[in-house]
Amino acid sequence: MYLIKFNMKKILFAFASLFITFCISAQGNKNLAELLGYPRESKLLIIHCDDLGLAHSVNMAGIKAFNDKSITSGSIMVPCPWAPEIMAYVKDNPGMDVGIHLTLTAEWKLYKWGGINSSDQIPSLLDKNNYFYPSVEELGKAAKAMEAEKELRAQIDRAYASGVKPTHIDTHMGSVLANPELIKIYLSLSEIYHLPILFPRAYLSWFPADIAKSLESKIFLIDNLFMLEPNMIAGNWIDAYKKGIEELKPGLNQMIVHLAVDNDEMQAISKGHDDYGSAWRQHDLDLVSSAEFKNLLKSNNIILIGWQQVRDLMNAPDVK
Amino acid sequence: MYLIKFNMKKILFAFASLFITFCISAQGNKNLAELLGYPRESKLLIIHCDDLGLAHSVNMAGIKAFNDKSITSGSIMVPCPWAPEIMAYVKDNPGMDVGIHLTLTAEWKLYKWGGINSSDQIPSLLDKNNYFYPSVEELGKAAKAMEAEKELRAQIDRAYASGVKPTHIDTHMGSVLANPELIKIYLSLSEIYHLPILFPRAYLSWFPADIAKSLESKIFLIDNLFMLEPNMIAGNWIDAYKKGIEELKPGLNQMIVHLAVDNDEMQAISKGHDDYGSAWRQHDLDLVSSAEFKNLLKSNNIILIGWQQVRDLMNAPDVK
Repeated sequence: MYLIKFNMKKILFAFASLFITFCISAQGNKNLAELLGYPRESKLLIIHCDDLGLAHSVNMAGIKAFNDKSITSGSIMVPCPWAPEIMAYVKDNPGMDVGIHLTLTAEWKLYKWGGINSSDQIPSLLDKNNYFYPSVEELGKAAKAMEAEKELRAQIDRAYASGVKPTHIDTHMGSVLANPELIKIYLSLSEIYHLPILFPRAYLSWFPADIAKSLESKIFLIDNLFMLEPNMIAGNWIDAYKKGIEELKPGLNQMIVHLAVDNDEMQAISKGHDDYGSAWRQHDLDLVSSAEFKNLLKSNNIILIGWQQVRDLMNAPDVK
Repeated sequence: MYLIKFNMKKILFAFASLFITFCISAQGNKNLAELLGYPRESKLLIIHCDDLGLAHSVNMAGIKAFNDKSITSGSIMVPCPWAPEIMAYVKDNPGMDVGIHLTLTAEWKLYKWGGINSSDQIPSLLDKNNYFYPSVEELGKAAKAMEAEKELRAQIDRAYASGVKPTHIDTHMGSVLANPELIKIYLSLSEIYHLPILFPRAYLSWFPADIAKSLESKIFLIDNLFMLEPNMIAGNWIDAYKKGIEELKPGLNQMIVHLAVDNDEMQAISKGHDDYGSAWRQHDLDLVSSAEFKNLLKSNNIILIGWQQVRDLMNAPDVK
């Protein structure tokens, strides 16, 4: 009986695969937008909340923004103190578009974390107190590739073990881009876990031609990445985002936002860091929640998608 | 020159020691109160804030209470996420009466921590995610003495390395009382670090006669320990404390309070735990800050002291 059931499953799976292969092959060289059923020149946008798990304040803001449909995706810093809270929430709310924000740095002065692994296993990633280094520069100089790979895999594995089914992988402060060996590990994680990674097409020029060529057909490459930076804030918060939205291009765009509730906890964490600090994050939360922002998306014909759709297409037969 | 300086220091130290020895010997069998210059039957009281470092909310409340002189002592949970903040504060504010709240448990559901040591070094203390066990029972069954000692010493050493000069040692949830081997380690830490430990005289009956005898002359033994428990709260918060204050006895008393600001962070940490939860801790903060509480202490002739005074006496020559 077990064998029959098993065989029936295999046969059904084979038929389904054939069908999907047929459909996608029949679509020829369609781009991501077309594969998702939109016109070829569509401006697709993932609105992405970084740093889930960093603090309760961030989790509150992220959950609010997900529930309001103000964001379409987010990613979790698995080694942080509040990761268990957000991972439990994601487990209890299946279908949330949440990935892994690979973390190898701990940038705040008095609120720190180390790795998922036993500290003895990853000494090159840690300072004398077994916390991650504060900066990508320090990490890039000190990190041994084998230890970094061990830690990054442990973070993804911990998320799965906590009931999260990640939609994608990205990286806190660009830490996995700290040196060429780390970049290779980052790329390999996409293959190992069958997950899209945040990787702007512009970065391809960093690589030797053969590696760039193997990557350039990847469906998940980001055509345009927008993240608010301190030098962009000349006028109102909305003005900087308005410019960002107006500059989105046909293809896959991602807008990274940093959300938090501006409260005692977040103020204490980010003390001394105005950029991406507590007030900054509240501004971002207010921004994505505002009717003005949503109207801008609409008037610029932006099509919102999540990483989940990219992941599912990437793993469909014959789509790379 | 160096030698002369050194010898002068030695000579001065020898004279000072002789003088203190003479003074204390001359006082014969004086008890703690008398050694501190109070009448023999004085009711000494340490008002002690547990769980510093647990959360920013707790640090805010503790610092407020120290500054208001509403408490006389507190202790830090060194492995917790917010320990770096309170340790930096204590370092920058010398003279604060702060000890080490030895921590081998992580009792909240979605806000966790593990040890200071590399997880590989203390596997018997940790669950599958390398967090401490939530209960003292689980800890007591699983803990290997050598690993526990290693971790407890690492917590004290980390505090010293962070610029804290601890005034005493006590224990979160009584975790170092989880089994007889842990109790022995707890007692030994007092000898090793020359620090008083929180040890109620009533516990002496748990020990074989020879150990009890070696302990019973210790100057730091607590004659009476008061901590608000859920079954004590029949009427107002102040009524339970009023009873506690009126029952304080001549000798060394300690009142343990759990302070926090009742905010989003603390509510999320203590979700599902009403006892010693967020609202409870705000009640305790309001209580110790109130004029009513301070008047009760005055009208009951309570003399407030800190662990610092006990530590200094304990380490004076000829006082045990």
